[in-house]
Amino acid sequence: MNSNADSFRKELENIRRSQEKLENSFPEIQTELKAIKSRMNNAEKRISDVEDRIMEITQSGQQTQNLMKKHESNMRDLWDNIKRANIYIIGIPEGEENEKGIENTFEEIMAGNFPNIKETDIKIQESQWAPKKLNPNRHTPKHIIIKMAKAKIKERILKAAREKQSINYKGTLVSLSTDSSTETLQARMEWQDIFKVLKGKKVAT
Amino acid sequence: MNSNADSFRKELENIRRSQEKLENSFPEIQTELKAIKSRMNNAEKRISDVEDRIMEITQSGQQTQNLMKKHESNMRDLWDNIKRANIYIIGIPEGEENEKGIENTFEEIMAGNFPNIKETDIKIQESQWAPKKLNPNRHTPKHIIIKMAKAKIKERILKAAREKQSINYKGTLVSLSTDSSTETLQARMEWQDIFKVLKGKKVAT
Amino acid sequence: MNSNADSFRKELENIRRSQEKLENSFPEIQTELKAIKSRMNNAEKRISDVEDRIMEITQSGQQTQNLMKKHESNMRDLWDNIKRANIYIIGIPEGEENEKGIENTFEEIMAGNFPNIKETDIKIQESQWAPKKLNPNRHTPKHIIIKMAKAKIKERILKAAREKQSINYKGTLVSLSTDSSTETLQARMEWQDIFKVLKGKKVAT
Repeated sequence: MNSNADSFRKELENIRRSQEKLENSFPEIQTELKAIKSRMNNAEKRISDVEDRIMEITQSGQQTQNLMKKHESNMRDLWDNIKRANIYIIGIPEGEENEKGIENTFEEIMAGNFPNIKETDIKIQESQWAPKKLNPNRHTPKHIIIKMAKAKIKERILKAAREKQSINYKGTLVSLSTDSSTETLQARMEWQDIFKVLKGKKVAT
Repeated sequence: MNSNADSFRKELENIRRSQEKLENSFPEIQTELKAIKSRMNNAEKRISDVEDRIMEITQSGQQTQNLMKKHESNMRDLWDNIKRANIYIIGIPEGEENEKGIENTFEEIMAGNFPNIKETDIKIQESQWAPKKLNPNRHTPKHIIIKMAKAKIKERILKAAREKQSINYKGTLVSLSTDSSTETLQARMEWQDIFKVLKGKKVAT
Repeated sequence: MNSNADSFRKELENIRRSQEKLENSFPEIQTELKAIKSRMNNAEKRISDVEDRIMEITQSGQQTQNLMKKHESNMRDLWDNIKRANIYIIGIPEGEENEKGIENTFEEIMAGNFPNIKETDIKIQESQWAPKKLNPNRHTPKHIIIKMAKAKIKERILKAAREKQSINYKGTLVSLSTDSSTETLQARMEWQDIFKVLKGKKVAT
């Protein structure tokens, strides 16, 4: 029995030591868990702050978009104001206009198609070739821009142009329109499609 | 004692097995803790990166705001340049101006109120109705915009207008001012309040 | 032996109780670990969402930058259009121009340096002092802007000016250039450096 009791005592001692080891490591784990929970709280707080900032940034970005749309519309208005007295002419055959000058060509179109508008009323401020907006590389006929002295003369001429079935210059069909921003550009592109059909696709667009 | 020793042995065996189970699960927990700490490190790194990006985005947004303010001011300058020779007239009674045309009305105002400014100096470029900026639906009298040929003529006329106590057209009080952007619009709105008082609230604003 | 058996029993009882305590706290730890892993999953999901939003915001910010560059270029085009008929003159000695007026000074420069351009062709729309763009506080000589009636007259005059070695006004070197936006401003600043050298640094820039 003595040897038995010794063996039990030894065994119990081993178990107790192992148990102590476990008991000691337990608060370590709890300390680690506590630290992780604290970091987690902190991380969640930071994520919430970041989410709030992203909400604010998104709202501010929306305001920026709206303001930029207003700026675009404002710039369109500026262009329309600058070009308010302009008449945009499509369809003058190339070469024709160099001989006599753009303004003579315009005066000839006016005299030939609108005899009711007095020559003295048609006061030109300046004239120029239209910059090739749509596609600078495409082989398109050059367009002409005539800046009238007053917007009212332009309006009167364009009203008369709309009422006339077709406007001709030396046997060729030409079109007179306003010289304004994107919306009108769209209309002009459609006009050019009509031109293609009317002219039997002689004009390359 | 034998049965006692057997019972102890059995009991010890049970305890040892349970303890082994606990000892085995302990490294599992530590492995899990290690994995969580690693994920936490990674999450904290990502949050820091996100916070840095938000700082950059905020700074870039501030630059965008500043640039948009510059654009707005630039567009105001463009409008002011376009309108630099314009005179804005408030107070012409409706109906009056259709009869003779806007420019005649303006010339009459000039002749009646500013006899010192020679008629040959008052060179008009064009004239138009003012667009209803403030509130298109409100019943406001139509305003007139006269574009002079030169900004200097406008300045001379407006200087004379400021020096005169009151400007009249057919017995009605009228006001001559610049035609420019928001700042001036504010001044014009205040003018209209003065008008209301001066005219005994006959003019609906 | 009885006392020995009692002592063992007591000892075993203690160990079993401690073991039970450990066994009970183990599922607590696992519950906590599970909760933390769940929070971690959630946090990682939120971080991913935030990262995605930041990607979108960055892309949208890039589009905003591009659009603002287009707006800036559009505003430069607007200014260039408004100023397309302007001639910018540097080098008129101060005081000189007050006597006779800016337009007379310009006509004198034209007559003295470009006898081939007919006086009747040089139609001036208006003239003004240039605003001090570079540095309002610096002691720079005042510059002059002449707006011609047509852009073509300006182009003809500036072409002639480029072909001439030097343009003089009352024995002083003057420069004629376009009146346009930043790019040209840069060229003008370089011109002023040339002026400094040519005039022996008499002109303070």
